[in-house]
Parts: sequence; C-alpha cells; structure tokens
Amino acid sequence: MNEYPIPIERLVDELSKLPGIGRKTALRLAYHIINLNEIQVKNLSNALIEAKEKIHECKLCFNLTDKEYCDLCSNDKRDRSKICVVESPKDLFAIENGGGYNGLYHVLHGIISPMNGIGAGQIRLKELEDRLNDDIKEIIIATNLSVEGDATAHYISQLVKDKDILVTRIAHGVPVGSDLEYFDSVTLKLALKNRTEI
Amino acid sequence: MNEYPIPIERLVDELSKLPGIGRKTALRLAYHIINLNEIQVKNLSNALIEAKEKIHECKLCFNLTDKEYCDLCSNDKRDRSKICVVESPKDLFAIENGGGYNGLYHVLHGIISPMNGIGAGQIRLKELEDRLNDDIKEIIIATNLSVEGDATAHYISQLVKDKDILVTRIAHGVPVGSDLEYFDSVTLKLALKNRTEI
Repeated sequence: MNEYPIPIERLVDELSKLPGIGRKTALRLAYHIINLNEIQVKNLSNALIEAKEKIHECKLCFNLTDKEYCDLCSNDKRDRSKICVVESPKDLFAIENGGGYNGLYHVLHGIISPMNGIGAGQIRLKELEDRLNDDIKEIIIATNLSVEGDATAHYISQLVKDKDILVTRIAHGVPVGSDLEYFDSVTLKLALKNRTEI
Repeated sequence: MNEYPIPIERLVDELSKLPGIGRKTALRLAYHIINLNEIQVKNLSNALIEAKEKIHECKLCFNLTDKEYCDLCSNDKRDRSKICVVESPKDLFAIENGGGYNGLYHVLHGIISPMNGIGAGQIRLKELEDRLNDDIKEIIIATNLSVEGDATAHYISQLVKDKDILVTRIAHGVPVGSDLEYFDSVTLKLALKNRTEI
C-alpha cells in the first residue's frame, strides 16, 4: 500500500496544486484538516467558494473588490488627479499600507513580457488609456525595476506623450534601515545617481 | 485602507489557521485561489468536505480509511499474528512505504504525555488491549524514543505482561547513509550499545 485512501489522496492532490505546497506539506495539511471538526472544514470550504464568487475586479481601477467600484475608487477624499500604476493588487495593497499616497490606482494584472508572450493587449493598458481624461495630472509608475517593468513603463509614457500629464516613476534605491554591503551594484549605482540634496 | 475586501480577509483568516501558514502565505494562496477558475476552486472545496466526511478510523486498527476496515486490516495476506503500534497514521504510512513489514498495525492517535495531560485513557490503548487474543504473537512498538514514547512503550509492555506475547521495539540508531558527525550523543551511544554482529 503506497497510497492513502482515495479521499485523502484527492485532497492532497488538490492542496499540492497551490503555490509553495509540495506533497509532504499537503499531507500535513490534509491530516490537520481531517482532525478539524465539521464546522471548521465547512468554514474553510465556504471561504474558498465565497472569495471566488464575490471577488472580482473594480470597474475603474481593476483592483480586487466585492463591490462594483473598489473602496479606493469610490472614496471622495482621494485625489482623483493622480493614478499610480501597479502590476498586481498585492503591489497596490503594499503601497496603500505604506500610507504615503492619496491618489487613485490602476492595476495592470501583469506586465509586458515578450519572453512570456505577454504583450500590451493582454494586460489592462487599454483600460488605462481610456482613463486618461483632462482631470488626470500625473501618472506614477510603480512597476518593478526589471526589463519587463521598464518596458511597461516605457509603453505607458508613450501612451501619455501627447497629453498634458506628468509621468513619474517611484524612486529605486537602498531601503531604509538596511546595510549597504548587502545590496547589488545596480541598486547602489541607482541610489548614488538619484541622490537628493539634504 | 489596511484591510482587504471581506471575502478575501475571511479566506486569509481561514487559511492562516492551517499549520505552518502565516498571514503572508495565506495572502499568496488567497490571490492564487481567486485567480483559479470556478471549477478548480469547487474541486478544492469539495476535496476538503469529502475528505472530512468520508475519512474515519478503521474499526480494528484505527488507521484512517474510507471503509469500515482499512485496506491493511481487510487484506488476507497480512500476518495477523503481529501488531505494530504507532502514534499516528503518518507513522503507519511511513513504515508501510518502507516495505519491510507484513503484519497489522494499531494506531494510538497520540502518546502518553502527563505534561500535556494525556493519559492512557485518552489514546487507543484500551482498544489495543481488546485486540490481544491468542492469535497475537508479537507486539512491535514503534513509538518515538522520547520520554512520552518510552512511557507509552512501558505501558504497553505492562498490558501484555501476563500473556504469551513477545513485545519488541524498533531499533534506534544511526540512519542509513548519514554522517556520524551530525548525530547527537544519545543516538550514537544507542547505536553502539545495540550493535549487531556482522
């Protein structure tokens, strides 16, 4: 007998499909789940279904939300003249939790990556273009500093070229509280190049 | 906004309850799950419910099974004169996958641990006693070599004392293919003490 009973095998199979979960971890989780009471398993199962059913993209900024427009887009106190462009909702929440920004967002849900066959048409760039009306004064690009991030930033700056909109990119440099010795040369060069007067 | 939409928060909450999954990992899993299609999420959700509903303990050995008696207990080819006593179904499957054993098992679902308030009555020791009829020739104790494992082994040997049953314990020593320098002194002392003639 090298196999567990079918319902356990099926659960282990399904859990192993999740990112970062191999068969051993899936088995540990499966044992844990079998030892929970029925209500706890129902709660977990319902949370899965409910998140999938209720969460979709905001009609304006494509952030994840359970409403038509997300809490940020429907918040009157946000500065509607600025749009911060991010790759994923995770990046949006990271900036939001940082607390230094009060404008709107635009979630691309991906990044231009010819190596992976992802062109401008596959991410939410057309939808960004549609948002660029006269109220928008600044686009802040917060894509990563990678080939793909650069390509996407370049594409966006081309979109905006003929409009009276400022395009900026978040600063890349050495994080606060970190030791210089641990950073790669590209980060250090950038940090020097973009130095600011104190 | 420091919170995700409620259905995401609920899913993250539920996932964080699983062993070894913190909030960051739960968030990564939640994003992944939201990006799956509906059928994939249903499959995962159903696998959870099904495993909980269908898996229970074997009536004889208390291994996990979806039948009345597990595949091992209902297999005529197994040697019914030997019972290997393990702490958990995981240990049973580990020994089974090793392939060196053809007898039956008894899963205690725990171990005597006065420190944690677990006495003999809370694990399947009474049920082991009930199995000790004249057909049983050997009890092989495969609990860990810890205070709790020793206490449990001692308890079992007392159960069997007046019966004509051999009680053995699996060998503890240095695993195959490992470097001696990495083992603790207790393991090395045991390995020397229990040396065998070649």
